[in-house]
Amino acid sequence: MTANLTIDAIEEYKSFASKLADAAAVITLANFRKPINIENKEKAGAFDPVTIADKAAEQAMRTLIIQKYPDHTIIGEEFDSVNGSSEFSWVLDPIDGTRAYIMGLPTWGTLIALLYYGEPIIGIIDQPYTKERFIGTPTGTSLNGSIIKCRTCSGLSDAILSSTAFDSYSSQEKEAYLSLASAVKLNRSEYDCYAYAMVAHGFIDIVAEAGMKIVDIMALIPVIRGAGGIVSNWQGNDFCDDGRLLACGDANIHKAAIAHLKDV
Amino acid sequence: MTANLTIDAIEEYKSFASKLADAAAVITLANFRKPINIENKEKAGAFDPVTIADKAAEQAMRTLIIQKYPDHTIIGEEFDSVNGSSEFSWVLDPIDGTRAYIMGLPTWGTLIALLYYGEPIIGIIDQPYTKERFIGTPTGTSLNGSIIKCRTCSGLSDAILSSTAFDSYSSQEKEAYLSLASAVKLNRSEYDCYAYAMVAHGFIDIVAEAGMKIVDIMALIPVIRGAGGIVSNWQGNDFCDDGRLLACGDANIHKAAIAHLKDV
Repeated sequence: MTANLTIDAIEEYKSFASKLADAAAVITLANFRKPINIENKEKAGAFDPVTIADKAAEQAMRTLIIQKYPDHTIIGEEFDSVNGSSEFSWVLDPIDGTRAYIMGLPTWGTLIALLYYGEPIIGIIDQPYTKERFIGTPTGTSLNGSIIKCRTCSGLSDAILSSTAFDSYSSQEKEAYLSLASAVKLNRSEYDCYAYAMVAHGFIDIVAEAGMKIVDIMALIPVIRGAGGIVSNWQGNDFCDDGRLLACGDANIHKAAIAHLKDV
Repeated sequence: MTANLTIDAIEEYKSFASKLADAAAVITLANFRKPINIENKEKAGAFDPVTIADKAAEQAMRTLIIQKYPDHTIIGEEFDSVNGSSEFSWVLDPIDGTRAYIMGLPTWGTLIALLYYGEPIIGIIDQPYTKERFIGTPTGTSLNGSIIKCRTCSGLSDAILSSTAFDSYSSQEKEAYLSLASAVKLNRSEYDCYAYAMVAHGFIDIVAEAGMKIVDIMALIPVIRGAGGIVSNWQGNDFCDDGRLLACGDANIHKAAIAHLKDV
């Protein structure tokens, strides 16, 4: 379907997506490392903070989309979906990595994806504190305008692996992940969306995660693919509707990682 | 002993320590996210990268110290100690978090400490990529010149805990750490020296680590203490010569954490 879109159309949406990131950044930065109100989305004992910034940043992005493209669908982390009549959908996660955000760490990011007939064609991972904007499109992935590429990797024994929220995986997911972890050179985790940005940039070889939501996943796909990497679920299928994501910079590494993860 | 030093003397050494950080930053940044030569300090199978940047940055700092204070002792990560005749010692770790560094993550830092009769009186945690310099002295801790403070915390059930390299802990250390982790609100790890900076900044409540070397520890102490926090080993003793460090923003949290860690 992507072939139906002109380069000019992609550039227009890419530019607009960057404006969404700008609008979110004003709000997320203004609240970063400040005393903030934290609500608890889950039941007693759970810890899934949603900040005022999260909601306000998503609202700011939704307002811009509704003004500019009133027929586009909007799916976001914080509010109900808006079902539009067009073939385009925006998928928004204003603060991916809310735990990093409340810990003052610069590994959270704003995730913005544009889907065309359900396929993510533009993805942004924006880290406003470090002022790094990773944008992936069918024509390539850039960091602040400079093209970046995944790196090749000679084998799992040379690979760097990462994940987030391993503690929340099912026992089968943990077993599969640990099998993969035992085969790599280095397994080092808890970097949220920043780890995917580093796959695209050629400094991490594998990110394998479970329990992800659509808003966590969609923006990552164009960023990884635009940089020459591969994204699938743990069985190697394109559609990651089971919450399990595998992103690799090298096709052979992806194949080798699948062997550890596929039986979950 | 700190009482013997004038404010002017402390300011002089603080200013010089900042120059050391500047000199290291030029080298670490020039090599960050670049293809770099990695040596392996340990035996086959182990993974403890030392980059060219690590050595060159330490050499640059050593040269400045020898020029300015030829009688000061120098203890560094990468080269043999220089034993000076004065009561001052510099303790240098040019890249704390070499794994973060090779993964492209902005959680590594340059650690610089000045000891006076063996007591760390000035500490710097410098993150050149995010342009954040945390400096602790007996008169306070600052981030890029602005005073920062640890936060209070009402109890372990409200606390955020962090560590690095848990996998390398002994089984007793792991058991004690997991006991503490089970009592806190959030345990999220692998942020190297950046986690201590966030204790000083009031966004993380506890960092508990084992297996640390003197060059990993000394710079952290003035940063945490200057911000009103507490640093000890896992038994609560001041001198952390067993490689186990506990840094807390709140004295009551420190006491509560010790109860979980002290029997190791």
